[in-house]
Amino acid sequence: MRILGIDPGTARMGYGVIEDSPQLSAIDYGCLTTPASLSQAQRLESLYRQIGEVIAETSPDEVAVERLFFNRNVTTAFTVGEARGVVLLRAAQAGCPVSDYTPSQIKQALVGYGRADKWQMQAMVTMALSLAEPPTPDDSADALAVAICHAHMRTAQKLLAQT
Amino acid sequence: MRILGIDPGTARMGYGVIEDSPQLSAIDYGCLTTPASLSQAQRLESLYRQIGEVIAETSPDEVAVERLFFNRNVTTAFTVGEARGVVLLRAAQAGCPVSDYTPSQIKQALVGYGRADKWQMQAMVTMALSLAEPPTPDDSADALAVAICHAHMRTAQKLLAQT
Repeated sequence: MRILGIDPGTARMGYGVIEDSPQLSAIDYGCLTTPASLSQAQRLESLYRQIGEVIAETSPDEVAVERLFFNRNVTTAFTVGEARGVVLLRAAQAGCPVSDYTPSQIKQALVGYGRADKWQMQAMVTMALSLAEPPTPDDSADALAVAICHAHMRTAQKLLAQT
Repeated sequence: MRILGIDPGTARMGYGVIEDSPQLSAIDYGCLTTPASLSQAQRLESLYRQIGEVIAETSPDEVAVERLFFNRNVTTAFTVGEARGVVLLRAAQAGCPVSDYTPSQIKQALVGYGRADKWQMQAMVTMALSLAEPPTPDDSADALAVAICHAHMRTAQKLLAQT
Protein backbone atom coordinates (compact mmCIF):
# COMPACT_ATOMS: atom_id res chain seq x y z
CA MET A 1 0.00 0.00 0.00
CA ARG A 2 1.53 3.26 -1.13
CA ILE A 3 0.25 6.58 0.25
CA LEU A 4 0.78 10.10 -1.06
CA GLY A 5 0.44 12.73 1.66
CA ILE A 6 -0.11 16.37 0.73
CA ASP A 7 0.26 19.58 2.72
CA PRO A 8 -1.66 21.91 0.37
CA GLY A 9 -0.71 25.47 -0.61
CA THR A 10 -0.34 27.54 -3.75
CA ALA A 11 3.14 28.97 -3.24
CA ARG A 12 4.48 25.80 -1.59
CA MET A 13 2.88 22.36 -1.60
CA GLY A 14 4.58 19.64 0.43
CA TYR A 15 4.32 16.06 -0.75
CA GLY A 16 5.49 12.81 0.78
CA VAL A 17 5.08 9.27 -0.54
CA ILE A 18 5.38 6.36 1.88
CA GLU A 19 5.11 2.60 1.54
CA ASP A 20 3.21 0.67 4.23
CA SER A 21 4.27 -2.96 3.80
CA PRO A 22 3.84 -3.26 6.80
CA GLN A 23 6.89 -1.30 7.96
CA LEU A 24 6.65 2.33 6.94
CA SER A 25 9.30 3.73 4.62
CA ALA A 26 9.71 6.96 2.65
CA ILE A 27 9.65 6.58 -1.13
CA ASP A 28 9.91 10.24 -2.07
CA TYR A 29 9.23 13.66 -0.58
CA GLY A 30 9.74 17.30 -1.36
CA CYS A 31 8.01 20.60 -1.98
CA LEU A 32 6.33 21.77 -5.18
CA THR A 33 6.65 25.52 -5.64
CA THR A 34 5.15 28.12 -7.96
CA PRO A 35 6.54 31.61 -8.57
CA ALA A 36 4.61 34.61 -7.21
CA SER A 37 5.02 36.25 -10.64
CA LEU A 38 2.33 33.94 -12.07
CA SER A 39 -1.41 34.54 -11.66
CA GLN A 40 -3.27 32.30 -9.19
CA ALA A 41 -4.82 30.42 -12.14
CA GLN A 42 -1.39 29.84 -13.71
CA ARG A 43 0.01 28.68 -10.38
CA LEU A 44 -2.80 26.14 -10.04
CA GLU A 45 -2.13 24.98 -13.59
CA SER A 46 1.56 24.50 -12.71
CA LEU A 47 0.66 22.58 -9.53
CA TYR A 48 -1.73 20.39 -11.51
CA ARG A 49 1.16 19.37 -13.78
CA GLN A 50 3.64 18.92 -10.95
CA ILE A 51 1.26 16.78 -8.86
CA GLY A 52 0.58 14.73 -11.98
CA GLU A 53 4.32 14.09 -12.32
CA VAL A 54 4.65 12.98 -8.70
CA ILE A 55 1.69 10.60 -9.14
CA ALA A 56 3.09 9.24 -12.42
CA GLU A 57 6.53 8.65 -10.88
CA THR A 58 5.42 7.14 -7.56
CA SER A 59 2.06 5.42 -8.38
CA PRO A 60 0.31 5.93 -5.03
CA ASP A 61 -2.74 3.77 -4.19
CA GLU A 62 -4.34 6.35 -1.94
CA VAL A 63 -3.98 10.05 -1.22
CA ALA A 64 -4.22 11.82 2.15
CA VAL A 65 -4.57 15.61 2.34
CA GLU A 66 -4.43 17.98 5.27
CA ARG A 67 -7.77 19.64 5.87
CA LEU A 68 -7.76 23.39 6.20
CA PHE A 69 -7.97 25.41 9.31
CA PHE A 70 -9.73 28.76 9.15
CA ASN A 71 -8.18 30.55 12.06
CA ARG A 72 -5.80 32.85 10.28
CA ASN A 73 -5.81 34.93 7.14
CA VAL A 74 -8.97 34.60 5.05
CA THR A 75 -7.12 35.36 1.82
CA THR A 76 -4.64 32.57 2.53
CA ALA A 77 -7.52 30.20 3.33
CA PHE A 78 -8.98 31.01 -0.08
CA THR A 79 -5.89 30.17 -2.05
CA VAL A 80 -5.14 27.06 0.03
CA GLY A 81 -8.70 25.86 -0.68
CA GLU A 82 -8.14 26.36 -4.41
CA ALA A 83 -4.87 24.41 -4.25
CA ARG A 84 -6.64 21.65 -2.31
CA GLY A 85 -9.27 21.47 -5.07
CA VAL A 86 -6.55 20.83 -7.65
CA VAL A 87 -5.07 18.04 -5.47
CA LEU A 88 -8.46 16.35 -5.00
CA LEU A 89 -9.14 16.61 -8.73
CA ARG A 90 -5.77 15.13 -9.67
CA ALA A 91 -6.21 12.26 -7.19
CA ALA A 92 -9.67 11.48 -8.60
CA GLN A 93 -8.29 11.54 -12.15
CA ALA A 94 -5.62 9.03 -11.07
CA GLY A 95 -8.29 6.82 -9.48
CA CYS A 96 -6.86 7.27 -5.95
CA PRO A 97 -9.32 7.46 -3.03
CA VAL A 98 -8.74 10.62 -0.99
CA SER A 99 -8.94 11.00 2.78
CA ASP A 100 -8.44 14.19 4.68
CA TYR A 101 -7.33 14.88 8.20
CA THR A 102 -7.29 17.94 10.41
CA PRO A 103 -3.96 19.13 11.88
CA SER A 104 -5.16 17.91 15.27
CA GLN A 105 -5.94 14.40 13.95
CA ILE A 106 -2.50 14.21 12.35
CA LYS A 107 -0.78 15.21 15.59
CA GLN A 108 -2.81 12.72 17.60
CA ALA A 109 -2.05 9.90 15.19
CA LEU A 110 1.69 10.61 15.27
CA VAL A 111 2.40 11.84 18.77
CA GLY A 112 -0.78 10.81 20.62
CA TYR A 113 -1.37 14.44 21.49
CA GLY A 114 -3.40 16.94 19.41
CA ARG A 115 -1.25 19.94 20.30
CA ALA A 116 2.19 18.48 19.65
CA ASP A 117 4.75 21.03 18.52
CA LYS A 118 6.64 21.14 15.24
CA TRP A 119 9.78 19.52 16.71
CA GLN A 120 7.92 16.59 18.25
CA MET A 121 6.21 16.02 14.91
CA GLN A 122 9.47 16.13 12.96
CA ALA A 123 11.08 13.70 15.40
CA MET A 124 8.15 11.28 15.08
CA VAL A 125 8.19 11.46 11.26
CA THR A 126 11.94 10.79 11.28
CA MET A 127 11.54 7.79 13.60
CA ALA A 128 8.42 6.35 11.98
CA LEU A 129 10.15 6.27 8.59
CA SER A 130 13.60 5.30 9.97
CA LEU A 131 15.18 8.30 8.29
CA ALA A 132 18.78 9.25 9.00
CA GLU A 133 17.78 12.87 9.59
CA PRO A 134 14.60 14.99 9.74
CA PRO A 135 13.08 15.55 6.29
CA THR A 136 13.36 19.06 4.91
CA PRO A 137 11.81 21.41 4.02
CA ASP A 138 9.08 21.57 6.70
CA ASP A 139 6.39 21.27 4.02
CA SER A 140 7.62 17.82 3.09
CA ALA A 141 7.79 16.73 6.76
CA ASP A 142 4.17 17.90 7.16
CA ALA A 143 3.15 15.97 4.04
CA LEU A 144 4.88 12.80 5.29
CA ALA A 145 3.04 13.25 8.61
CA VAL A 146 -0.33 13.26 6.77
CA ALA A 147 0.66 10.08 4.93
CA ILE A 148 1.75 8.37 8.18
CA CYS A 149 -1.50 9.47 9.85
CA HIS A 150 -3.45 7.82 7.03
CA ALA A 151 -1.40 4.60 7.35
CA HIS A 152 -2.14 4.51 11.10
CA MET A 153 -5.84 5.15 10.52
CA ARG A 154 -6.07 2.35 7.97
CA THR A 155 -4.36 -0.07 10.37
CA ALA A 156 -6.67 0.99 13.22
CA GLN A 157 -9.73 0.48 11.02
CA LYS A 158 -8.56 -2.99 10.03
CA LEU A 159 -8.01 -3.93 13.68
CA LEU A 160 -11.43 -2.59 14.65
CA ALA A 161 -13.05 -4.57 11.84
CA GLN A 162 -11.55 -7.77 13.30
CA THR A 163 -13.06 -7.29 16.75
CA MET B 1 -14.98 39.45 -27.01
CA ARG B 2 -16.60 36.44 -25.44
CA ILE B 3 -16.76 36.13 -21.65
CA LEU B 4 -17.51 33.07 -19.53
CA GLY B 5 -18.91 33.98 -16.10
CA ILE B 6 -18.87 31.43 -13.30
CA ASP B 7 -20.74 31.29 -9.98
CA PRO B 8 -18.64 28.58 -8.30
CA GLY B 9 -19.91 25.70 -6.17
CA THR B 10 -19.45 21.96 -5.93
CA ALA B 11 -23.08 20.80 -5.93
CA ARG B 12 -24.18 23.51 -8.38
CA MET B 13 -21.97 25.68 -10.55
CA GLY B 14 -23.67 28.37 -12.61
CA TYR B 15 -22.15 29.36 -15.93
CA GLY B 16 -23.04 32.06 -18.42
CA VAL B 17 -21.34 32.93 -21.70
CA ILE B 18 -21.91 36.38 -23.20
CA GLU B 19 -20.69 38.16 -26.29
CA ASP B 20 -19.65 41.80 -26.00
CA SER B 21 -19.57 43.13 -29.58
CA PRO B 22 -20.34 45.83 -28.40
CA GLN B 23 -23.96 45.03 -27.53
CA LEU B 24 -24.15 42.33 -24.87
CA SER B 25 -25.88 39.09 -25.77
CA ALA B 26 -26.21 35.68 -24.11
CA ILE B 27 -24.56 32.80 -25.97
CA ASP B 28 -25.24 30.05 -23.46
CA TYR B 29 -26.01 29.63 -19.79
CA GLY B 30 -26.99 26.95 -17.34
CA CYS B 31 -25.97 25.12 -14.21
CA LEU B 32 -23.46 22.27 -13.90
CA THR B 33 -24.43 19.85 -11.16
CA THR B 34 -22.77 16.93 -9.39
CA PRO B 35 -24.56 14.26 -7.34
CA ALA B 36 -24.09 14.23 -3.56
CA SER B 37 -23.46 10.47 -3.80
CA LEU B 38 -19.97 11.17 -5.21
CA SER B 39 -16.96 12.06 -3.06
CA GLN B 40 -15.78 15.68 -3.13
CA ALA B 41 -12.80 14.62 -5.25
CA GLN B 42 -15.06 12.85 -7.76
CA ARG B 43 -17.39 15.86 -7.89
CA LEU B 44 -14.42 18.12 -8.70
CA GLU B 45 -13.34 15.68 -11.39
CA SER B 46 -16.84 15.78 -12.89
CA LEU B 47 -16.88 19.60 -12.78
CA TYR B 48 -13.46 19.70 -14.43
CA ARG B 49 -14.87 17.71 -17.37
CA GLN B 50 -18.11 19.68 -17.55
CA ILE B 51 -16.35 23.08 -17.49
CA GLY B 52 -14.02 21.75 -20.18
CA GLU B 53 -17.03 20.94 -22.35
CA VAL B 54 -18.53 24.43 -21.88
CA ILE B 55 -15.19 26.01 -22.82
CA ALA B 56 -14.80 23.72 -25.85
CA GLU B 57 -18.33 24.49 -27.08
CA THR B 58 -18.33 28.25 -26.50
CA SER B 59 -14.64 29.27 -26.90
CA PRO B 60 -14.54 32.14 -24.38
CA ASP B 61 -11.69 34.68 -24.60
CA GLU B 62 -11.76 35.52 -20.91
CA VAL B 63 -13.21 34.07 -17.72
CA ALA B 64 -14.76 35.95 -14.77
CA VAL B 65 -15.40 34.18 -11.47
CA GLU B 66 -17.24 35.30 -8.37
CA ARG B 67 -14.90 35.70 -5.42
CA LEU B 68 -15.89 33.99 -2.23
CA PHE B 69 -17.39 35.55 0.78
CA PHE B 70 -16.57 34.07 4.18
CA ASN B 71 -19.54 35.16 6.18
CA ARG B 72 -21.44 31.92 6.41
CA ASN B 73 -20.66 28.26 6.80
CA VAL B 74 -16.94 27.46 6.92
CA THR B 75 -17.47 23.97 5.48
CA THR B 76 -19.32 25.45 2.51
CA ALA B 77 -16.55 28.00 2.03
CA PHE B 78 -14.06 25.14 1.88
CA THR B 79 -15.81 23.24 -0.87
CA VAL B 80 -16.60 26.41 -2.83
CA GLY B 81 -12.88 27.28 -2.70
CA GLU B 82 -12.00 23.86 -4.05
CA ALA B 83 -14.51 24.25 -6.89
CA ARG B 84 -13.07 27.69 -7.64
CA GLY B 85 -9.61 26.14 -7.87
CA VAL B 86 -10.83 23.74 -10.56
CA VAL B 87 -12.37 26.64 -12.53
CA LEU B 88 -9.17 28.71 -12.35
CA LEU B 89 -7.12 25.69 -13.41
CA ARG B 90 -9.41 24.92 -16.36
CA ALA B 91 -9.34 28.55 -17.50
CA ALA B 92 -5.53 28.61 -17.34
CA GLN B 93 -5.35 25.36 -19.31
CA ALA B 94 -7.57 26.95 -21.98
CA GLY B 95 -5.33 30.05 -22.07
CA CYS B 96 -8.10 32.36 -20.81
CA PRO B 97 -7.16 35.21 -18.45
CA VAL B 98 -9.22 35.08 -15.25
CA SER B 99 -10.65 38.01 -13.31
CA ASP B 100 -12.58 37.77 -10.11
CA TYR B 101 -15.15 40.02 -8.53
CA THR B 102 -16.77 40.21 -5.14
CA PRO B 103 -20.59 39.97 -4.88
CA SER B 104 -20.60 43.66 -3.99
CA GLN B 105 -18.57 44.63 -7.10
CA ILE B 106 -20.94 42.61 -9.28
CA LYS B 107 -24.00 44.33 -7.82
CA GLN B 108 -22.44 47.76 -8.20
CA ALA B 109 -21.50 47.10 -11.81
CA LEU B 110 -24.99 45.93 -12.71
CA VAL B 111 -27.33 47.97 -10.54
CA GLY B 112 -25.02 50.77 -9.33
CA TYR B 113 -25.68 49.69 -5.77
CA GLY B 114 -23.62 47.14 -3.79
CA ARG B 115 -26.56 45.77 -1.82
CA ALA B 116 -29.02 45.23 -4.65
CA ASP B 117 -31.42 42.35 -4.05
CA LYS B 118 -31.79 39.18 -6.07
CA TRP B 119 -34.78 40.49 -8.06
CA GLN B 120 -33.11 43.73 -9.05
CA MET B 121 -30.11 41.71 -10.22
CA GLN B 122 -32.23 39.30 -12.25
CA ALA B 123 -34.09 42.19 -13.85
CA MET B 124 -30.80 43.90 -14.80
CA VAL B 125 -29.34 40.69 -16.26
CA THR B 126 -32.53 40.18 -18.30
CA MET B 127 -32.41 43.75 -19.62
CA ALA B 128 -28.66 43.90 -20.23
CA LEU B 129 -28.82 40.78 -22.38
CA SER B 130 -32.21 41.62 -23.99
CA LEU B 131 -33.62 38.28 -22.86
CA ALA B 132 -37.33 37.53 -23.23
CA GLU B 133 -37.51 36.33 -19.62
CA PRO B 134 -35.21 36.07 -16.56
CA PRO B 135 -32.60 33.32 -16.93
CA THR B 136 -33.12 30.27 -14.73
CA PRO B 137 -31.92 28.68 -12.57
CA ASP B 138 -30.63 31.41 -10.23
CA ASP B 139 -27.09 30.01 -10.51
CA SER B 140 -27.01 30.79 -14.23
CA ALA B 141 -28.40 34.31 -13.65
CA ASP B 142 -25.61 34.87 -11.09
CA ALA B 143 -23.01 33.59 -13.55
CA LEU B 144 -24.31 35.87 -16.32
CA ALA B 145 -24.12 38.77 -13.83
CA VAL B 146 -20.41 38.06 -13.24
CA ALA B 147 -19.81 38.00 -17.00
CA ILE B 148 -21.69 41.30 -17.49
CA CYS B 149 -19.73 42.83 -14.60
CA HIS B 150 -16.50 41.87 -16.34
CA ALA B 151 -17.71 43.34 -19.65
CA HIS B 152 -18.54 46.64 -17.88
CA MET B 153 -15.17 46.67 -16.11
CA ARG B 154 -13.29 46.13 -19.37
CA THR B 155 -15.22 48.97 -21.03
CA ALA B 156 -14.56 51.26 -18.07
CA GLN B 157 -10.84 50.45 -18.16
CA LYS B 158 -10.70 51.20 -21.90
CA LEU B 159 -12.44 54.55 -21.37
CA LEU B 160 -10.11 55.43 -18.50
CA ALA B 161 -7.07 54.58 -20.63
CA GLN B 162 -8.26 57.10 -23.25
CA THR B 163 -8.45 60.03 -20.85
